Amino acid sequence: MTKKAAIIGGGVIGGGWAARFLLNGWNVSVFDPDPQAERKISEVMANARAALPALSDVPMPAEGKLSFASTITEAVEGAHYIQESVSERLDLKHRVFAQIQQSAELGTPIGSSTSGFKPSELQENAANPATIFVAHPFNPVYLLPLAEVVPSPKSDPAVIENAKKILREIGMFPLHVRKEIDAHIADRFLEAVWREALWLVKDGIATTEEIDEAIRMGFGLRWGQMGLFETYRVAGGEAGMKHFMAQFGPCLTWPWTKLMDVPEFNDELVDLIAGQSDAQSGHHTIRELERIRDSNLIGFLRALKDRNWGAGKVLREHDEARAVAFHAEIDTAPKATPLVMAHMQVLPGWIDYNGHMTESRYYFANSEVVDAFLRLIGAGMDYVAAGNSYYSAETHIRHLGEAKLGDRLTGTIQIISADEKRFRSFVRIMKGDDCVATIEQLCLHVYMAEGKSAPASAEVWAKLRAIAEAHASLPQPEGAGRAVGQKKG
Amino acid sequence: MTKKAAIIGGGVIGGGWAARFLLNGWNVSVFDPDPQAERKISEVMANARAALPALSDVPMPAEGKLSFASTITEAVEGAHYIQESVSERLDLKHRVFAQIQQSAELGTPIGSSTSGFKPSELQENAANPATIFVAHPFNPVYLLPLAEVVPSPKSDPAVIENAKKILREIGMFPLHVRKEIDAHIADRFLEAVWREALWLVKDGIATTEEIDEAIRMGFGLRWGQMGLFETYRVAGGEAGMKHFMAQFGPCLTWPWTKLMDVPEFNDELVDLIAGQSDAQSGHHTIRELERIRDSNLIGFLRALKDRNWGAGKVLREHDEARAVAFHAEIDTAPKATPLVMAHMQVLPGWIDYNGHMTESRYYFANSEVVDAFLRLIGAGMDYVAAGNSYYSAETHIRHLGEAKLGDRLTGTIQIISADEKRFRSFVRIMKGDDCVATIEQLCLHVYMAEGKSAPASAEVWAKLRAIAEAHASLPQPEGAGRAVGQKKG
Repeated sequence: MTKKAAIIGGGVIGGGWAARFLLNGWNVSVFDPDPQAERKISEVMANARAALPALSDVPMPAEGKLSFASTITEAVEGAHYIQESVSERLDLKHRVFAQIQQSAELGTPIGSSTSGFKPSELQENAANPATIFVAHPFNPVYLLPLAEVVPSPKSDPAVIENAKKILREIGMFPLHVRKEIDAHIADRFLEAVWREALWLVKDGIATTEEIDEAIRMGFGLRWGQMGLFETYRVAGGEAGMKHFMAQFGPCLTWPWTKLMDVPEFNDELVDLIAGQSDAQSGHHTIRELERIRDSNLIGFLRALKDRNWGAGKVLREHDEARAVAFHAEIDTAPKATPLVMAHMQVLPGWIDYNGHMTESRYYFANSEVVDAFLRLIGAGMDYVAAGNSYYSAETHIRHLGEAKLGDRLTGTIQIISADEKRFRSFVRIMKGDDCVATIEQLCLHVYMAEGKSAPASAEVWAKLRAIAEAHASLPQPEGAGRAVGQKKG
Repeated sequence: MTKKAAIIGGGVIGGGWAARFLLNGWNVSVFDPDPQAERKISEVMANARAALPALSDVPMPAEGKLSFASTITEAVEGAHYIQESVSERLDLKHRVFAQIQQSAELGTPIGSSTSGFKPSELQENAANPATIFVAHPFNPVYLLPLAEVVPSPKSDPAVIENAKKILREIGMFPLHVRKEIDAHIADRFLEAVWREALWLVKDGIATTEEIDEAIRMGFGLRWGQMGLFETYRVAGGEAGMKHFMAQFGPCLTWPWTKLMDVPEFNDELVDLIAGQSDAQSGHHTIRELERIRDSNLIGFLRALKDRNWGAGKVLREHDEARAVAFHAEIDTAPKATPLVMAHMQVLPGWIDYNGHMTESRYYFANSEVVDAFLRLIGAGMDYVAAGNSYYSAETHIRHLGEAKLGDRLTGTIQIISADEKRFRSFVRIMKGDDCVATIEQLCLHVYMAEGKSAPASAEVWAKLRAIAEAHASLPQPEGAGRAVGQKKG
């Protein structure tokens, strides 16, 4: 049976909850008196539909049914989970809970998205305090896994466990906060940073942009994968967490932040933290943690580089500056020898569980070589932007050797035949003197607006023909013209 | 001419600087009286060599030459850039600068890795204050781009510009801090968060592990790509930054952090911040920023998923829970029809600049189908772990249609022929009823220890044979047995 979630309050946060439930196959009923609620939710849904499925390697279930209720009673009827995301006003939240509990099935979990209120505050005067708790998510709710689940002593442990199970079911990470406190855990840090940032702007030390760069070019990248303590554990190195703390203990009395009401720095505190850090990360050596951290950072930085954003933009600009010198070294004059078109290195994302370059990456390497060749004959990005392109029609790949992480590869191209509408290329992927793969490919010249084959421009064809003519005297490559499984000969 | 950097102090930070310069082709001379310095640097270098090249799509230059100097004078001789990374003691730093300036060429930039001291403090009593400044990096220095460059009024602007140019040359992002302050910019946030975290642990609210989860499952992921203000600008939505600030203004007086010495919240402060935020991000609409943010987060989360770490582990577990139900639906009994082996969706990382699925991803899709088939016949990961595997020898791909972002694809497999040592498969990648690609492949059974062809186990061969026999009555697929460019017929 399809389950139902009731979403009370349909802003950015409520909409994010609705999206997470819907895309995970739950039906969702939203209550929000705002006449714009339907439009706002549909905008969040459009974002979520384009994003959340990209995280999954298992097809998503059929999307649940979204409906808009005209009363809280209608929204919560038959609901298996209820989430409140109304404005941060305690009196309003109390009224909402009262209405929910008049109609909801007894025992249904009622989570609140509150950033700051404690669950015992939310439960005040409630008909049934035991089912009301904090389930604090982070924007965008449909992508970020964290939900801080905060019970009070009055909470029913069975309701809390059921809520955590449901949150896991929709792909979230319920973090059980054991002791209630204003702003829970994460928002205490957010608030401290926010206040410090307001000071920096007010005092003219830095602009909002400079502050954002100071975060996303450095520690922001670290925190997406290890958080605060594990990061420092690694920084402390072999000497350990105690040594790290001792080193930075004195700074606690220095004016490095406006947060000057500091805890007493004594052995008890050091032992407490070092002991917890051991329990958390002690099953990895520092060397292992360093490698894990570096691999994660490479993943983040490459993702940003693909998107030309933030730290990834820095990487691209650095590449571009070096590429000029590098490309100047490639000899591209037409002559009777395969052209060296690309130098590559087997990257961490290219290998399989055996540590070998995965088979599809050989095809990727061919694309790198052919793309470089297309740029050489004047059919690069500008040519594509003007509406023309070469499309791959057919490809034959032979796997002749193996490449491993870090191996440096060279890609050469030989033109077997060409006319104004197509060319047949033979790419060799070389590891030193060994040919680890060959890729034979037929590319068709396409006028994209009409989606059909058309002659290349005169300039492109002239350059392609010059190279094809120079290559005509080369012997037919061994392995060209083969079908899969064909006998040698 | 190869340039030279002098690294004074060879710990984790000094070693990271050395690695960045060396891998970018600079010669490096390290001075550190610690007898362990050489070992420590070599360990950082090993990490850096395995990591930094993975960020580059241009081959790295030849690594520079690393040497260890026995005096500061020797280290700085002929250096084009000098970086100090000794312990955080001002008197020690002053002694180091004095020795450096006795020998270094006049005008050579002298950066300090200090986390907290202001440049004017570093410059006290120096022979030439104008060349000493803060260049504060972030661990791991060989991966994270940020370097806070902080001059004092005594600094020579030309030296600062030269230093920033050099930092860019080694792939860093120099953030020019215009006004000196204790702990610069980033470490003010780190210190505020550190102090808040000490309170939370001391008060028994959360353990180090819970705090790390509260960071890396939520806002840590956001900060790796947008920082604080741009994130909030997006959260504020159409109503804008002023509205966002007004909404959270009152919280400034609430005990959401121990940092209670807050700036006065008035119109002037709101206008200042809203104005800076417009200047920073106003060229993107909120919708654009949302899409950029989501795409970045997908990249981060998928990188973590590949590595089964942090938030990526949550995604994997969520997939696994759903995969059980999904795989139960696939009908895998041998019969005379191609087997449906995989359901896929075109992910953001699969598309090219035209928005089409890139050609190498069709080969990747084939691997998904063949891997699922191998698991079906009992030749999955356990079989590989025991030393046997199927290796691809030869592949022929036909591109017959196009797939775009979000398209759902199905992969079917037909076994054309099989014996104990090999099978020939024909995979169709279907988009609804359209076949967008076919992949014909010859796979050889290999006993990996000897790296040569060998018969499959009796169990695997029995399962493979049953399917091959059921498929024997199917017609030969159109397009099977083709060579590239062969005429149809």
